[in-house]
Amino acid sequence: MDKIHGGNIYEMARQRGIDSRKIIDFSASINPLGLSPRAKKKLGKGGLEAVLHYPDAECGELRKTLAQFHGIPEDCLLPGAGSTEFIYSLPRVLKLERILLVTPAFSEYENALETQSRDCRIHFFETREEDGFELNVEGLLLALTQGYDALYLCNPNNPTGILAEKKDLLRVLAQAEREKAWLILDEAFIDFVPEESLIRQAVVSPRLIILRSLTKFFALPGLRAGYLVSNSGMIEEFSRVKEPWTVNALAQIAAVESLQDKAYADQTLVYIREERENLAHGLQGIPGFIPYPGSANYLLVQLHPSLNLSAAELREKMIPRGVLIRDCQSFHHLGPYFFRVAVRTHRENQALLKALRQVHKEILKKEWNSEVRIQDADEKAAGLPGLKSSG
Amino acid sequence: MDKIHGGNIYEMARQRGIDSRKIIDFSASINPLGLSPRAKKKLGKGGLEAVLHYPDAECGELRKTLAQFHGIPEDCLLPGAGSTEFIYSLPRVLKLERILLVTPAFSEYENALETQSRDCRIHFFETREEDGFELNVEGLLLALTQGYDALYLCNPNNPTGILAEKKDLLRVLAQAEREKAWLILDEAFIDFVPEESLIRQAVVSPRLIILRSLTKFFALPGLRAGYLVSNSGMIEEFSRVKEPWTVNALAQIAAVESLQDKAYADQTLVYIREERENLAHGLQGIPGFIPYPGSANYLLVQLHPSLNLSAAELREKMIPRGVLIRDCQSFHHLGPYFFRVAVRTHRENQALLKALRQVHKEILKKEWNSEVRIQDADEKAAGLPGLKSSG
Repeated sequence: MDKIHGGNIYEMARQRGIDSRKIIDFSASINPLGLSPRAKKKLGKGGLEAVLHYPDAECGELRKTLAQFHGIPEDCLLPGAGSTEFIYSLPRVLKLERILLVTPAFSEYENALETQSRDCRIHFFETREEDGFELNVEGLLLALTQGYDALYLCNPNNPTGILAEKKDLLRVLAQAEREKAWLILDEAFIDFVPEESLIRQAVVSPRLIILRSLTKFFALPGLRAGYLVSNSGMIEEFSRVKEPWTVNALAQIAAVESLQDKAYADQTLVYIREERENLAHGLQGIPGFIPYPGSANYLLVQLHPSLNLSAAELREKMIPRGVLIRDCQSFHHLGPYFFRVAVRTHRENQALLKALRQVHKEILKKEWNSEVRIQDADEKAAGLPGLKSSG
Repeated sequence: MDKIHGGNIYEMARQRGIDSRKIIDFSASINPLGLSPRAKKKLGKGGLEAVLHYPDAECGELRKTLAQFHGIPEDCLLPGAGSTEFIYSLPRVLKLERILLVTPAFSEYENALETQSRDCRIHFFETREEDGFELNVEGLLLALTQGYDALYLCNPNNPTGILAEKKDLLRVLAQAEREKAWLILDEAFIDFVPEESLIRQAVVSPRLIILRSLTKFFALPGLRAGYLVSNSGMIEEFSRVKEPWTVNALAQIAAVESLQDKAYADQTLVYIREERENLAHGLQGIPGFIPYPGSANYLLVQLHPSLNLSAAELREKMIPRGVLIRDCQSFHHLGPYFFRVAVRTHRENQALLKALRQVHKEILKKEWNSEVRIQDADEKAAGLPGLKSSG
C-alpha cells in the first residue's frame, strides 16, 4: 500500500515525526470554505446519534436529493463511498479488458484496472505539454476506432485542470457509441464549471458512465461520498453487485444538506474563481513558474528547466515552511518539473506564494554563489584574480 | 436492492410513512450503552474538522491500536468499512468456487459469493433445531473432506447466538488446513465472549481468515468499521487489491478511541450479560415463546406452532407498539416461526416484553373468541342453544 496520492499528509507527517496540523495542505483539492453551514449544523446536532444506527443501505434521501439537484430520474444514479468505489467496481461490472486512458490521469484508474480486471491492457492517449494539455479531439476520435472496451477521461482534467469543451465531448461520446465502447467520464471537479457537465446525456446514452464526487466541492473528503450516473439499466447492474452500506450515515446526512445549500454553492463558485485568478497571477510573477489555465479548484504549475529545480525538490523545501504541494511525477507523461496546488483561502494562498518566492530567491542565491565559486576556481586554476565567494 | 437485513428501520418507516425515531429497533444488535465516552468526546471535539481531510488510507493509528489491543503484529490485520467490505472481497481474492456454509447465516455471505465469484457452488451445513442449533463437529469434519475451497462459519452464530467451543473450532481449523480449505471465521459478535476468539491462531495458520466488526460492541454501525485478521502473506494479498480510503476519517477516530476505553468495555460485558439473562427469563415467562441460550447481544426466539402466529405476523403486530423485531424467515433453514431481538437497555427490554405479552394476550383472546364462534355456529347448525360470542 505505498500508492502515491495527494492529501497523504498523515503519511508524510508520520515519516518525519511532525504534527500534520501545522502543515497547510495544498496537495488535496478541497473547497477552502469548508463544510456548508447547513451540513455543519445538521452534523453538529444529530451526528453522534446517527452513528448509532446502520446507514440506509438504499441511500433513499440522498438519491432523492441528487435526482432533484440534477433534474434526472432517481433510478439513473447510485451513491457510493466516493467515486473511488465505482472506479474499483467498473472494471469488474463491465469486464473491461482493452482500455484507452487519456493522460495525465488519476492513478487509481490504473490501480483499479490492474487489480480488478482478469486481463487488462491499457493504452494511453496523451494530452501534450506542447498543446497546453488541450485534448486533441480528432486524434481521439481516430484512436477510438481501434476496438477499445472503454475510454477513461476526466473533465476538467486532473491534474492539469484543462477543460474539454462540451461540443467536443459530445463528438467523443457519439464515436464511443458507434464503436460500442464505454465513455467513462470522471466529473469529480465539474461542480466548479457545472454548465459543462454531460450528466443529462448519461441518462439516455447506452454508453456513457459518469463518475461524480461530493468530496471536493462540498469539502467532505473525510466522510467519503460520490455517485455514479448512467442509464437505468446500467445502474441496475451496478446495484445488483454492490456492497451494501458503503455510504456511512454521516456522509448521507452531510451530502443531503450540502446539496440543498444554494447560498454556499454560489459563494464557492465566486470565491474559487477569484482566488484561482489571484493565485495564477501570483505564480506567473515568480520567474520560471508557469501555471496552466485550470478550470477547477487547483492549478498545475511547470517549473522551467532553467531553475534546475524538480517538483520533488521543491516539495521538500516547502515542508519546513509549513506547506505541502503535490509533486506530479507519479502522473504519466508529466515528468519531474510539474506540481499541483489547490486553491485555498486568500490568506493561505498568499502564504503559499510567499513561501514559493522565498524558495525561488534561495535557489537564485545558491545558483549565483555556485557560479561564482566555479568562476573563482577557474580563475584560480588560470592563476587569475577573481571575486571572492561570500559563502 | 431489496435485500432483507436487520436494522433497515428507514425502509420500514418510509414504506409506512411513520417516523423512524418513534420505533425502538430490536432488529439490529448494537451495544445499548451507545458510543464509548472517549469516542464521543473525541468526535464531538474534532469530528467536524476531521471531515475536511482525506482519511488516512493506511489507517496507521487504527492498525497500531488494533495490534496493541489484540497483541498481534500490525501486518496481520487490515481495517475496512465494516467486515462487509471483506465479505465482498473474499470471493475475488481467494477465487472461491466450492463453498461450505454453516447455516443459519448472515445473508451477505451468499449475496457476496453469488455476485463476486465467476462460478460458485454453495453447499449448506445445517445446525439443527433438534440439536438446539449446536454445531455437529464430527459431521462438519467429515463434510470438510469433500473438496471445498472454503468453510464459512460465524461464532457466536448469527442469528442463533449459539457459541461453538474453542477446542472444537481448533479441530475444524486443523481439518481445514489438512484439506487445504480456508476457514473463514466471522467473529462479528465475539467481543461479548472475547476469550473464545481464534485471533491468535489466525496470525500463524496458513488457512484461517477472521472477520471482525467494530460495529456491534462499540456501537458504530453508522460509521462502518471492521477488520480482517490473517497471516501476513494473506493480508498483503488483500492490501494489494484493496480500494483505498474505505475507512472514513470519523470511523478511524471513533475506533481508535473506543478500543482504548477499557472501562466502557468492562461495563458493556457486565451489562449485556445481566440484561440478556433478564430478557431470556422474561421471554420464557410468555407461554409459547422459546428463547435459545445465546452468547452475544441478541436472542433467537422460537414461536411454538400452537400459538398459530408466524414471526412475520408478530413483527407486524409489534410495529404499532413502537417496536421493531427481526423476522428470521430470510435465514436458511429457520422457517416462519423464528425471530431475533437485540439486548437493549433494561427499560427498553421491559418495553419489549410488555408489548410481547400484550400481543400474546390478544392472540389468546382472539383464539378463544374464534373457538367460541365455531362452537356457536356448530351449535346453531345442530339446533342447540349455545354461549354468545362477545364480538
